[in-house]
Amino acid sequence: MASQVLESTLIPTRVAGVTLRRLPEVHDSRGLLSICELTRSVPFEVRRYFVVTATADACRGTHAHHKLHQFLCCIHGQCHAIADDGKTREEFVLDSPSLGLYLPPMTWGTQHRFSPGAVLLVLASDVFEETDYICEYDEFLTLARRPR
Amino acid sequence: MASQVLESTLIPTRVAGVTLRRLPEVHDSRGLLSICELTRSVPFEVRRYFVVTATADACRGTHAHHKLHQFLCCIHGQCHAIADDGKTREEFVLDSPSLGLYLPPMTWGTQHRFSPGAVLLVLASDVFEETDYICEYDEFLTLARRPR
Repeated sequence: MASQVLESTLIPTRVAGVTLRRLPEVHDSRGLLSICELTRSVPFEVRRYFVVTATADACRGTHAHHKLHQFLCCIHGQCHAIADDGKTREEFVLDSPSLGLYLPPMTWGTQHRFSPGAVLLVLASDVFEETDYICEYDEFLTLARRPR
Repeated sequence: MASQVLESTLIPTRVAGVTLRRLPEVHDSRGLLSICELTRSVPFEVRRYFVVTATADACRGTHAHHKLHQFLCCIHGQCHAIADDGKTREEFVLDSPSLGLYLPPMTWGTQHRFSPGAVLLVLASDVFEETDYICEYDEFLTLARRPR
């Protein structure tokens, strides 16, 4: 049985609170295993996940959350993910089940440029709550730039 | 914003403790969303997940666990999953991100017949622990058939 090196690598970004995680992998003749120990690699308690099977021209996200934490991982194909804290915006290519993007609350997130058949796994810190969404960018900017 | 009907459907099987879950879906022009609220649809606390990108001829699993609970979901392509409690064996086709298979401890599990590029998401109740594996089928049968 293969032993597992379970350390994930934290990769900082220029966007406030946003981080990338390179997850450990185990390769063998049967394929590739990407492993995520939640308490090591995901900085919140996961209460929900959803799987997005996107159309190639889809533009998803384009909102922020007041309280929700999310962890995005493109587990088939690839997509681009933009994270924006109201001051700084950065775009990432999510192209591996071993690469996760953590979006804290009050981050404007957009996912686009999905490759054909791309599948995005999103871990979330809570169940769906419509009032947690900020869907207008101007409102997001006002809130994000408020002194805390 | 689409409202979400979040009830999942429990589908019993003939194998002790093993169940299928049909997860709720939201369809729109941007694609398909399969949603899993963990406390509603996964009967254990998730501490780890792994993503298997399998070769087409792979045969994975072929072991049981003393204590580990698992929830399998083929989120791209499809595979066949066999569950065996030591008395009854059943084979399932996992062909949708909205169909999950729960395997309780002391279930012999095998996954095979992966379609090209298939991706299997496995939620697990604990971190990797080599001593939790039962890798010999005869040993599994002896343990499974012991009065509890």
